[in-house]
Amino acid sequence: MIFICEKHKLLEGISIAQKAITGKSTMQILEGIYINATKSGLTLIGSDMDISIQTTVKADVIENGEIVIDAKIFGEIIRKFPNSNIKIETTEDGLIQITCERSVFNIVYMNANEYPSIPDIDENLKIEVNESILRNMIKGTSFAIAQDETRPILQGILFKVKNKNLNLVSLDGYRLAIRSEFLDTDIDIEVVIPGRTLVEVSKILEDNDKSVYITFTNNHILFNLENTKIISRLLDGKFVNYNSLLPQEHKLLVTINRQELQNGIERASLMAKDGNTNLIKLDVQDDALIITSNSQLGKVREEVAMKLQGDEIQIAFNSRYLLDVLKNMEDDEIVMEMTSGISPCVIKEKDSESSKYLVLPVRLMR
Amino acid sequence: MIFICEKHKLLEGISIAQKAITGKSTMQILEGIYINATKSGLTLIGSDMDISIQTTVKADVIENGEIVIDAKIFGEIIRKFPNSNIKIETTEDGLIQITCERSVFNIVYMNANEYPSIPDIDENLKIEVNESILRNMIKGTSFAIAQDETRPILQGILFKVKNKNLNLVSLDGYRLAIRSEFLDTDIDIEVVIPGRTLVEVSKILEDNDKSVYITFTNNHILFNLENTKIISRLLDGKFVNYNSLLPQEHKLLVTINRQELQNGIERASLMAKDGNTNLIKLDVQDDALIITSNSQLGKVREEVAMKLQGDEIQIAFNSRYLLDVLKNMEDDEIVMEMTSGISPCVIKEKDSESSKYLVLPVRLMR
Repeated sequence: MIFICEKHKLLEGISIAQKAITGKSTMQILEGIYINATKSGLTLIGSDMDISIQTTVKADVIENGEIVIDAKIFGEIIRKFPNSNIKIETTEDGLIQITCERSVFNIVYMNANEYPSIPDIDENLKIEVNESILRNMIKGTSFAIAQDETRPILQGILFKVKNKNLNLVSLDGYRLAIRSEFLDTDIDIEVVIPGRTLVEVSKILEDNDKSVYITFTNNHILFNLENTKIISRLLDGKFVNYNSLLPQEHKLLVTINRQELQNGIERASLMAKDGNTNLIKLDVQDDALIITSNSQLGKVREEVAMKLQGDEIQIAFNSRYLLDVLKNMEDDEIVMEMTSGISPCVIKEKDSESSKYLVLPVRLMR
Repeated sequence: MIFICEKHKLLEGISIAQKAITGKSTMQILEGIYINATKSGLTLIGSDMDISIQTTVKADVIENGEIVIDAKIFGEIIRKFPNSNIKIETTEDGLIQITCERSVFNIVYMNANEYPSIPDIDENLKIEVNESILRNMIKGTSFAIAQDETRPILQGILFKVKNKNLNLVSLDGYRLAIRSEFLDTDIDIEVVIPGRTLVEVSKILEDNDKSVYITFTNNHILFNLENTKIISRLLDGKFVNYNSLLPQEHKLLVTINRQELQNGIERASLMAKDGNTNLIKLDVQDDALIITSNSQLGKVREEVAMKLQGDEIQIAFNSRYLLDVLKNMEDDEIVMEMTSGISPCVIKEKDSESSKYLVLPVRLMR
């Protein structure tokens, strides 16, 4: 194998493939990046068996070949090189020689035959989604994935295509996140994707108008970007019937500036750290939302302007759950729908139906 | 106590005073910031007994008073406020009320009478140093302070004024760092300042042409900046006679580009992590410096252009010690003076006498 490649292109490819490599696998070969050099360029693969990321890099290939090279040390070497051409070739003494200007590395590599094959996906059942929209949808739901392992299905995000709508849904027993966007397709499908896969996918997605093509099989999902394919196994089992968790009606509606509410809650949280409860109280008054909290350190009162339709109430929350929601919304104006101090609060953007969040209140001792 | 102060001014004062607060003290009151409000403004003090930092902040003081308030929570609250005026006042129920726009905090505070007094320094024996020069001198020596506690004096930096020269010196048994600058004074003095003090001082010093006034007593040193005073205890004992460590002559002299050498060593170090030895070999040849290193991972060869006066030699180093020196020098061109593979290497800037470093080689088994 002999090829010459620009530093920044090779480094970009390594950075993408590396996202699949956790270093937690018991198989040593999975700590490596698989590189296949052919006349059409380089194919790089990183994998931890659950996720595989394959990306292509332009290179001047002089002699075909395939190797697996430790991802960490390979990435570090390439990163430290000057912006110049890098020549990589296998040597007669069984090493890989990496040359860039006046630097020469000779390092060990692994046998490409031992690298597990990645699932072969038939790209028949396919949808097309805008990169930046998908990125926002993942960002807006991934924070609500369950962290504990008692219900593995909740460590995934429901990915549901129905009635020309793409829906991403996550929930963890304290809050529920739903993002929806119009999708021009006739496909109806429902799969649960491991949260970690989608977080890695969102890191690779860019904020642009290009398309991602998504293919589904019984066990796998494939995200096909311009130069990169991400293949992930799906989670087994049925997702929670989340629609039944959404209240059918509400008694009051608060319209409020998202950033002002977030700032007020963040400050109030400073007094709520005691015993890690993060407990803050909201007092929904006629023309202002009063946020209070207290602990051994002292107490705080925040006032945020808002518009109220309906009756005044008092309700308490774990501030972290509210902040997660507010930080991951996009619009400036949001609405909160509530019924009582013990019923869930629904948070939406004022002028859009694409985000819907539900947060459970904390029931206070009376 | 009642005062009104702009958010950013108060926050700046807190950030400065807080640098003295380690949170490691057994005295709870030292986790607080002392605030004294008088007609001339606010005085803020943070201290851990070894270092005390006192700074003044402009404020509109309506009623004089003094309090001590937990530095961490106070800093967090002020930081989270909008850029606006902040009103702070003691209340009848023994709390301190902090108001900013529509936020009101009421928090506990400590009795200012219990706050230890900071040493009273007679500013007689005083020198004047340029802020940015002092900052660079500290940066250029503090990395070589001994990390282990076996010889406490080496955890300090020698601060020596002699023959119209200010010298800062540190050493740790593997390397020696000397910075010198002309100083227009008739004072001769030699003290050893705890390394931590100087690191905190350098964080407060700015890159400008203002002056710092430095006062010495038997036990303390005072750095007097425009609005801030830093007082530190001195270390007891006599510093090492570092001049005796410097070689009187050398057999060869290498002139080399600092950044190119640093890049080459950084890359070579990637192969030198094995067993944490960081061992790299330098092969000083007629017209190039060859850096090599090898480990189980593989081997590397780096070539850096240079000019040699004298004979070729081979010498080995812990790459970390060389990198520390190179990263903390300023000139592009440096010179390295060597005699043999087992004698110290002296590193200087090519066109300046203000930096002098000594690094011991690693003796190789033959």
